[in-house]
Amino acid sequence: MWTTRLAAALWTVALPLGAWAAEPLPSWHDGPAKTAILDFVAAVTTEAGADFVPPDERIAVFDNDGTLWSEQPVYFQFLFAMDRAAELAAADPAWASTPALEAAAAGDVEAIVAGGHDALLEVVTATHSGMTVAAFTATVSDWIATARHPATDRLYTDMLFQPMLELLDHLRANDFTPYIVSGGGVDFMRAFTEDAYGIPPEQVIGSMGDARFEIVDGDPVILKDPGIAFIDDKGTKPVAIARHIGRRPIFVAGNSDGDLAMAQWSTAGEGPRFALLVHHTDGEREFAYDRESHVGRLDAALDAAAAEGWLVVDMVRDWKRVWPAR
Amino acid sequence: MWTTRLAAALWTVALPLGAWAAEPLPSWHDGPAKTAILDFVAAVTTEAGADFVPPDERIAVFDNDGTLWSEQPVYFQFLFAMDRAAELAAADPAWASTPALEAAAAGDVEAIVAGGHDALLEVVTATHSGMTVAAFTATVSDWIATARHPATDRLYTDMLFQPMLELLDHLRANDFTPYIVSGGGVDFMRAFTEDAYGIPPEQVIGSMGDARFEIVDGDPVILKDPGIAFIDDKGTKPVAIARHIGRRPIFVAGNSDGDLAMAQWSTAGEGPRFALLVHHTDGEREFAYDRESHVGRLDAALDAAAAEGWLVVDMVRDWKRVWPAR
Repeated sequence: MWTTRLAAALWTVALPLGAWAAEPLPSWHDGPAKTAILDFVAAVTTEAGADFVPPDERIAVFDNDGTLWSEQPVYFQFLFAMDRAAELAAADPAWASTPALEAAAAGDVEAIVAGGHDALLEVVTATHSGMTVAAFTATVSDWIATARHPATDRLYTDMLFQPMLELLDHLRANDFTPYIVSGGGVDFMRAFTEDAYGIPPEQVIGSMGDARFEIVDGDPVILKDPGIAFIDDKGTKPVAIARHIGRRPIFVAGNSDGDLAMAQWSTAGEGPRFALLVHHTDGEREFAYDRESHVGRLDAALDAAAAEGWLVVDMVRDWKRVWPAR
Repeated sequence: MWTTRLAAALWTVALPLGAWAAEPLPSWHDGPAKTAILDFVAAVTTEAGADFVPPDERIAVFDNDGTLWSEQPVYFQFLFAMDRAAELAAADPAWASTPALEAAAAGDVEAIVAGGHDALLEVVTATHSGMTVAAFTATVSDWIATARHPATDRLYTDMLFQPMLELLDHLRANDFTPYIVSGGGVDFMRAFTEDAYGIPPEQVIGSMGDARFEIVDGDPVILKDPGIAFIDDKGTKPVAIARHIGRRPIFVAGNSDGDLAMAQWSTAGEGPRFALLVHHTDGEREFAYDRESHVGRLDAALDAAAAEGWLVVDMVRDWKRVWPAR
């Protein structure tokens, strides 16, 4: 009967689909890295087990740049600042009133880097303050939907790490709460973290600029001021976690020395703990860098991982794919 | 048959119990306040309705002192600091090395108040820094379990507002996420907010002292330093909400002018919004104070509530009971 044949055909299609959906971490090669992750998640979610952790305590923290998406040749937020500078200068040539802003508007990364911390701060301040949080979010949303990476010509959201998206899914499916804990600006990240990673704004921790409440023409708003209120990097990452979450994570993922302190603090808690470092070994599919890199340097943390037995994920060995299919 | 009689008896018992459990806000008198709350919650949770709000956006923010528990004659955190000063001075008489610390150790509130901001800061610093967050939390936990209010001789957790506990329950039952947004110290509050209110640490926003990550004898810890990093009051409350939650609340509850800005900001968002002020009218069952009080002054916010149509909860008129039964 044709209905039987149809049912059989559907079954044939449905089975592998079902099997695929049920299999976690499909973009991870079978091997020690994948096994270590799966074993840890199984251990802390097995109610009768010695390592069981109640769902409320299943806090996972992820660095963003270089851990959940790429970060070369420079942090993407800096590329946003450069693109934004070009836009603002195009709309009003008087905007680029200093050498640093002129360089930014011209897309001259080297000149900004040569100008050091002061030049960088000037560009970030000029593009990240003087508007409401809502207006800034709208600007970043427009940018992330359209801007393309200078080297790959990909949308930035096409440079997320597919295996890490699957890791987030697997953790959520097991009642973990994943947070981002990044040196990136919190307002910048929140413009896309929910769509990109499924991580809602309240689970995004980052650097923060000065801000103030004001009633402007009868409208209560939060204004982004010049000035840095908090830089979320290295030793301030555990401080930010303690302040925002008030619990010590049981799972921590990073990729650089900026994540060392939060890995140390998280893994020093009692009970089962897991730390993972993404090692950028793949110059073919992504970028290869570690101990000598200016962006995302992985040096002391790589030594610590060896000493502490943290998982070092080798992108070449452990990942079938790096970025999502377009 | 005895089984029938037993079943009938059980049914008689079960019915009123079931009815009680199903009835929200049992300690609120029937009337406009209770009706306004129930109507708002019904409106934003009715999927086909014009005012439907998705669960993720059902953010509710609550002030703590004077809104969820009492705050007279002074904030309970200050009474903790005084009790702690007495303990520290008893253990080491050299500890009370300044007039302010001596006054604190002697329980002389007036002397501290007379010493103004500097004396207060000195007492808070001496009792709230120089230890790990974990050690401080343990100290507060011990205190909250045993210390008693000087006027009522009640445990402080016996001075929570029963009607507000029921409001929190009703909101949670309707997929709201309630946060505390308080001038109180975040580490102080988190020692009891989960047990007292069912509000987990990540949903507690407050004032923060300076803090740093350090490895002490091989143990990675967060140390509480002297110095104030953030005071969460008045105009900084909406800033703290924007930074921590990244969403504009749809429900806001406070009791003083310190909550005015967060009420203004929350209610100015699009769609349905609800603001509530607890008015301390009940000198019999609690404390009566408003426009002239040094603690929990309710003056500009009371005028704003009238102008904006926010709910003013009159403790005498609206609450059957103030504190929980002991």
